Amino acid sequence: MMHGLIRELISPTLALSSLSDAAILQAELRGGARLAFSTDSYVVSPLFFPGGNIGDLAINGTVNDLAVSGAKPLWLTVGLIIEEGLPIETLKQVLNSIADAAQRANVRVVAGDTKVVNRGGCDQLFINTAGIGVVDEGIDLGPHRIKVGDIVIVSGMIGNHGIAVMAERNGLTFDPPVLSDTAPLNGLTERLLGSEGNAIKMMRDPTRGGVATTLKEIALESGLNIEIDETELPIAAGVNGACELLGLDPLYVANEGILIAIVDRDRAQSVLNLMRSNPLGKDAAIIGEVTPLRGDRSPLVLLRTSIGGRRIVDMLAGEQLTRIC
Amino acid sequence: MMHGLIRELISPTLALSSLSDAAILQAELRGGARLAFSTDSYVVSPLFFPGGNIGDLAINGTVNDLAVSGAKPLWLTVGLIIEEGLPIETLKQVLNSIADAAQRANVRVVAGDTKVVNRGGCDQLFINTAGIGVVDEGIDLGPHRIKVGDIVIVSGMIGNHGIAVMAERNGLTFDPPVLSDTAPLNGLTERLLGSEGNAIKMMRDPTRGGVATTLKEIALESGLNIEIDETELPIAAGVNGACELLGLDPLYVANEGILIAIVDRDRAQSVLNLMRSNPLGKDAAIIGEVTPLRGDRSPLVLLRTSIGGRRIVDMLAGEQLTRIC
Repeated sequence: MMHGLIRELISPTLALSSLSDAAILQAELRGGARLAFSTDSYVVSPLFFPGGNIGDLAINGTVNDLAVSGAKPLWLTVGLIIEEGLPIETLKQVLNSIADAAQRANVRVVAGDTKVVNRGGCDQLFINTAGIGVVDEGIDLGPHRIKVGDIVIVSGMIGNHGIAVMAERNGLTFDPPVLSDTAPLNGLTERLLGSEGNAIKMMRDPTRGGVATTLKEIALESGLNIEIDETELPIAAGVNGACELLGLDPLYVANEGILIAIVDRDRAQSVLNLMRSNPLGKDAAIIGEVTPLRGDRSPLVLLRTSIGGRRIVDMLAGEQLTRIC
Repeated sequence: MMHGLIRELISPTLALSSLSDAAILQAELRGGARLAFSTDSYVVSPLFFPGGNIGDLAINGTVNDLAVSGAKPLWLTVGLIIEEGLPIETLKQVLNSIADAAQRANVRVVAGDTKVVNRGGCDQLFINTAGIGVVDEGIDLGPHRIKVGDIVIVSGMIGNHGIAVMAERNGLTFDPPVLSDTAPLNGLTERLLGSEGNAIKMMRDPTRGGVATTLKEIALESGLNIEIDETELPIAAGVNGACELLGLDPLYVANEGILIAIVDRDRAQSVLNLMRSNPLGKDAAIIGEVTPLRGDRSPLVLLRTSIGGRRIVDMLAGEQLTRIC
């Protein structure tokens, strides 16, 4: 049955050329180019949510991990774990979304794997994607390049993905609806690195754990503080309202189609303008800057609040939202 | 909690150097070299079985998929899906097995991902691995190279992995015990391709679905028949006995440490001798040959039985063993 399923449904939909053990790929690596290699598993619940489903999420997620590492994503693998009894129609919809998302992101799904587990062995469908990208010579991103005075830019509205999933899970609807921001960022990052490669110090996509967690990781890795302005955070009214209703802080809510860039201060406005000229960056905003450590304290993220105070933004101490991606 | 888990347990055990989104790898691809890229998810139940566990299985499985494609495996990713409540001690044991297996296979785990799902959301632990290997210039494996008269060699005893898992699942013990054959085949394949590269037409590892399914796939892909001799199949007495007890045909039982090679007839003995000089190939045997199609029938696998008859070996029509890998 599974062999038939793979042969008749999965391979054609994903345009897998062969059932063999590994895809053989002709890599054209010019001198000095490097490979980027990344993986993520997707266990989002429910499978479908406003703005997307587990299929496009799985493609965009790995595309974005490669993109923010400075790579041009080329090839993806897709591993499916399917619960026995999952409606074939559901599987078809997800596979179609995978194929569409791969096309939109201009990547190829080159190999796959399917496991079917007994009823109750997993919850409907889990997807793993792994991806290979190529990092062109001269691109050097990372916390080692971050300096005091660098500017923190976010490429779009925050909190949409997490709120869309939570709303669906809790049967809430908003008017206008809050849609997941799931999208491939490689078009945007290639544009940024092509024009402003030297000015971009580091990029990261604030998925699970949200903007707060990502900024804290960047602070820890760079060994410097990051200060952000609450009033500068681009947050849709619907997301703000939903966060109040659900008792969530939008800074910790997952995103699937935005990136945070740490940028040379002198080029920040130019990078911001470039982002805003791209549909996926139209709501980009400067939200803060890199500041010196305070005495001998460990690196902090500080939020300048709308009423003029300052508070420390830490990793989430309690429960993170589970199965948000 | 998860961030702590990743930082304190998973990353150090797997020697992951960073928590960033993608690993950046320096690839030294000489002219004409290609990349091989493969993925597999592992959902084996139970997690531990005689001879191995889900951790080494996940490493060896992807290493072998790359190896039988003619690649030298270099880098792996590991994606964990953990059920809430999995004992930390269990996770530690599996992570240690992953690290040990990677070292044995001489590959590096370069990136990882961890998702925790609610109790009942999955069954204890699933693992996805993806891997990159390099295929040297001049290596050309595939069904297009297979001709009538080519010899079929299996590198070791068949059926051990599936029987070891089924025995554990059903509370059976054998004396001597049947152990999973889980092992990395890249040392063997590199040796074979180094010395007998031209003679090897195609390799594949007969995992899920066993030797029968793999041979049928090779027949279909090459467009030729394959005939094998029942009396030549290397099967341990314990596996034969267990198969009778459990009502299984060893030809369909999963293997995790052997390969099937289709080899030029004139070099078959030489390839066999080379295999047997390697500990993982000591039980290698010639089991059959490639034969012409019969009239206009589609490609078949035929078994010459011990009593002189012939029967068609097809894909498994009914239930395959589930969660065997």
